[in-house]
Amino acid sequence: MERSGSAMTFARELWYTVAWSEQIGRSLTPRTIAGDHLVLYRQLSGDVAALSDTCPHRFAPMHLGSLVDDVVQCGYHGLRFDAGGACVHNPHGNGAKPKAARLRRYDVVELDGLVWVWMGAGEPADISTIPRFPELHESSYAFTGAHMMTMDLPIDLIVDNLLDLSHAAYLHPATLGAAQGTKDITSVKKAGNRIQSNRLMPGAPPAFVFQATEAAGPDDIVDYWANMRWDPPGVFSMDAGIVATGGRKEDGRILSSVQIVVPSTEGSSYYFWKMFRNYNEDVPGMTEAIEAAVVQAFSTEDEPMVRAVRDRMAGRNFWDMRPLLLPQDSAAVQARRVMDALIAGEAAGAGDI
Amino acid sequence: MERSGSAMTFARELWYTVAWSEQIGRSLTPRTIAGDHLVLYRQLSGDVAALSDTCPHRFAPMHLGSLVDDVVQCGYHGLRFDAGGACVHNPHGNGAKPKAARLRRYDVVELDGLVWVWMGAGEPADISTIPRFPELHESSYAFTGAHMMTMDLPIDLIVDNLLDLSHAAYLHPATLGAAQGTKDITSVKKAGNRIQSNRLMPGAPPAFVFQATEAAGPDDIVDYWANMRWDPPGVFSMDAGIVATGGRKEDGRILSSVQIVVPSTEGSSYYFWKMFRNYNEDVPGMTEAIEAAVVQAFSTEDEPMVRAVRDRMAGRNFWDMRPLLLPQDSAAVQARRVMDALIAGEAAGAGDI
Amino acid sequence: MERSGSAMTFARELWYTVAWSEQIGRSLTPRTIAGDHLVLYRQLSGDVAALSDTCPHRFAPMHLGSLVDDVVQCGYHGLRFDAGGACVHNPHGNGAKPKAARLRRYDVVELDGLVWVWMGAGEPADISTIPRFPELHESSYAFTGAHMMTMDLPIDLIVDNLLDLSHAAYLHPATLGAAQGTKDITSVKKAGNRIQSNRLMPGAPPAFVFQATEAAGPDDIVDYWANMRWDPPGVFSMDAGIVATGGRKEDGRILSSVQIVVPSTEGSSYYFWKMFRNYNEDVPGMTEAIEAAVVQAFSTEDEPMVRAVRDRMAGRNFWDMRPLLLPQDSAAVQARRVMDALIAGEAAGAGDI
Ligand code: FES
Ligand code: FES
Ligand code: FES
Repeated sequence: MERSGSAMTFARELWYTVAWSEQIGRSLTPRTIAGDHLVLYRQLSGDVAALSDTCPHRFAPMHLGSLVDDVVQCGYHGLRFDAGGACVHNPHGNGAKPKAARLRRYDVVELDGLVWVWMGAGEPADISTIPRFPELHESSYAFTGAHMMTMDLPIDLIVDNLLDLSHAAYLHPATLGAAQGTKDITSVKKAGNRIQSNRLMPGAPPAFVFQATEAAGPDDIVDYWANMRWDPPGVFSMDAGIVATGGRKEDGRILSSVQIVVPSTEGSSYYFWKMFRNYNEDVPGMTEAIEAAVVQAFSTEDEPMVRAVRDRMAGRNFWDMRPLLLPQDSAAVQARRVMDALIAGEAAGAGDI
Repeated sequence: MERSGSAMTFARELWYTVAWSEQIGRSLTPRTIAGDHLVLYRQLSGDVAALSDTCPHRFAPMHLGSLVDDVVQCGYHGLRFDAGGACVHNPHGNGAKPKAARLRRYDVVELDGLVWVWMGAGEPADISTIPRFPELHESSYAFTGAHMMTMDLPIDLIVDNLLDLSHAAYLHPATLGAAQGTKDITSVKKAGNRIQSNRLMPGAPPAFVFQATEAAGPDDIVDYWANMRWDPPGVFSMDAGIVATGGRKEDGRILSSVQIVVPSTEGSSYYFWKMFRNYNEDVPGMTEAIEAAVVQAFSTEDEPMVRAVRDRMAGRNFWDMRPLLLPQDSAAVQARRVMDALIAGEAAGAGDI
Repeated sequence: MERSGSAMTFARELWYTVAWSEQIGRSLTPRTIAGDHLVLYRQLSGDVAALSDTCPHRFAPMHLGSLVDDVVQCGYHGLRFDAGGACVHNPHGNGAKPKAARLRRYDVVELDGLVWVWMGAGEPADISTIPRFPELHESSYAFTGAHMMTMDLPIDLIVDNLLDLSHAAYLHPATLGAAQGTKDITSVKKAGNRIQSNRLMPGAPPAFVFQATEAAGPDDIVDYWANMRWDPPGVFSMDAGIVATGGRKEDGRILSSVQIVVPSTEGSSYYFWKMFRNYNEDVPGMTEAIEAAVVQAFSTEDEPMVRAVRDRMAGRNFWDMRPLLLPQDSAAVQARRVMDALIAGEAAGAGDI
């Protein structure tokens, strides 16, 4: 199998997150997902349509055209396609609309305020296979906005970053990380293709973000938990918070998040995220301050480091570089093996046909 | 045959446009034509010289040197070459000038205010094979300046754009295009390697450019013709104008152009153009307004769209992508076939040697 | 053997210049030398340490971490390594430090104010093989600062430039070069892998730099010598100056330099340089003026020309392009042959193992 760089071939037989629901309205929104170019829009019925973004005529991106009711008009020579992908209008000459004139249509589901698209070749898997986020419906939480970043990084290195939170004390010392040297106890469980990595740092001062949001004072001693649920290819539910040492988690101060990394091309990714907390919900400006801190940590700490790793790998395969495997790598390594198995399984399946 | 991207290997046994005559004077002017690096200058006799732009010593571009009478001096170590390409001076050591010390010389012809260079390996074809432009000598026309743009686009996608003017209503709605949905009648004729594609849009309101240049009022109903003559590789004579519906073309208002696209590298092109009209010749500022409108249409409408198409093709071969072929594609497809045949013919001929 | 562009594979069994001594202190300094990523720092003992800059865990550049006494801490997850390359601390989980957890350590020597690193696979060659610069210890000279530039150019084209100083009159007419057409007498001697190329321009007006530094007046007639000593891969000692025509060199005005070009990657290089003179040592501002003139000549004359040559070569092999060989090329061609032989010898040696 051809493999380029640290990026893997994509697993395609998956529901992929392509947008927050609120991002899709009455305009043509492009996304490149697992190498496919898609155009998304909300139909007059309210349903989201997902079509190939490449006009079959001369390959113009459809999102450069215009939306006429539920029909997309190509911006180059004016062919029109409906939400099912059929060509419904050729404005030139005798108006011929050959059968080959169509756009691929993708199945779409909206769940938990997220838009999911089936990228596989055949019938979509049951939507019960889509990871759910009941926490996004919790009315007592204070939520940040629904954010999307595009990152010039392959998904596997971002997943590595998120599944090995031992980096926080070193890369984010002034925000998210506990003090360097704080003891951590990590347990990793795998169930099917889902990985649950739980990390506990008991009996230490609170990370700066908790002080800044007045969840704890600098002299408090707390237990800090950071539990990550991962589903392929990069769908994270992060449950994190602090409680007075020895206290019950239910009494703690939660500062959790949904973080979904989606492969765009082999070297770039989308990053969807939303944070929420169960304390100081109404303090003016606090949500905005958390957003600013997270964006700063991502863009001035995580992204430069992961970019440096990518550059240092220089297109070589991760395993070929013989990475040092330490106990704290268990979750990230298992996630890589899940992805490798999914891709190998699809390749074998494709071979059968 | 190796083919990279949507770009074709070059047909070389052709006279290529390299400059407007007025662009070549007493300085060293570089051009990269069909992958060859050339340096051009006007000799004291008035004749244009065309030489390889690569010094045989250490490969310095000759145009970075200086012109001494009719001799070119390399800017790196000072070797001098005459207009025939012979080394006439080595300033160092014993002044040795080995026979291998020469620049390739190219045959040059000036016609119709354009400089043509023979890029083939052998004797140049008769200059009667060069497409002529008698319209450039028409003293009753008002002409724009002689323009050259460099475009970071392969020639074939630009030729596609120009040979399928059905794009005008969609890509240039506010300038050159007639109203969307205007009926068009297209006829395509091929004679030798020349293609004539004639397009008529009868009985519609005038395109905006005709209103803006006071060739017609917004409530007039006109016949709009746009006839394209194409010669390899991208030499266009465009005859276009409007006349009151049912009127005789001779009574019409002409707004025509010469447009010559020349392959520079596989992914970049030169675009030479000049427009002219037979009305409102003396209205102050009108010629400049037309130039500004054309540059804006090229650079904010055509170029971004063709660039998007190029990116979407991502280096894949045009035919391998199975483009949808519609009646309006006839001229562009025939032009591609002419170029494919010229290249295949040259490859076969080269094989004979 | 695979060869990319004009760049050669690297000879590795050499001591490489990596820094001026004064550049290495108590911070982590990165260098990429012959494709290897290194991190350098000065230990508390004063000795310089050189380690691989790539963490064996997840390949983070070590120089993005921090220096704790003589130990380097990775900036991603906090592993620590001592100056010998051994992992001495894993802050996570059970603190496991597998044997595979180490950084490659490089041998280091400081001589003449320069830091040298052995890039070979085995035992380092005796330090007596390192080219020496007694002139850098000459207390009666006035020295410029110790400079380093990074250049986006392969080393071989920079060495070509420096070993064929016949370019000076053409590329640096207003600074370092004598008048165009000045006679030059060149002699080249090779001893082992060292090349000595001596150039004399007798009986001509002084180059502008000597006028500007008041070493001679514009009407003087001088003998100008420019002698280059080269050692692999790009270590130059340049002895240059002027003397009244027919005078003895000992009475002359020296304006000499150390210039060391080091291959970083196949397409980029470091350039270490320092100039010195034996006249007008105490004239205020003169040293700074010389520095400014040299930087300007490098960056506005040499670098653009060598870059143009590199672009014109477009990744092709130097010999495959059949360069014209002239008498003045002798030194540069011999240096290429020395490098080719070193590389071929290493390849053959590696084959034996
Ligand atoms: S490219 Fe879409 S209609 Fe031509
Ligand atoms: S490269 Fe032209 S004279 Fe040396
Ligand atoms: S990459 Fe260095 S400790 Fe993880």
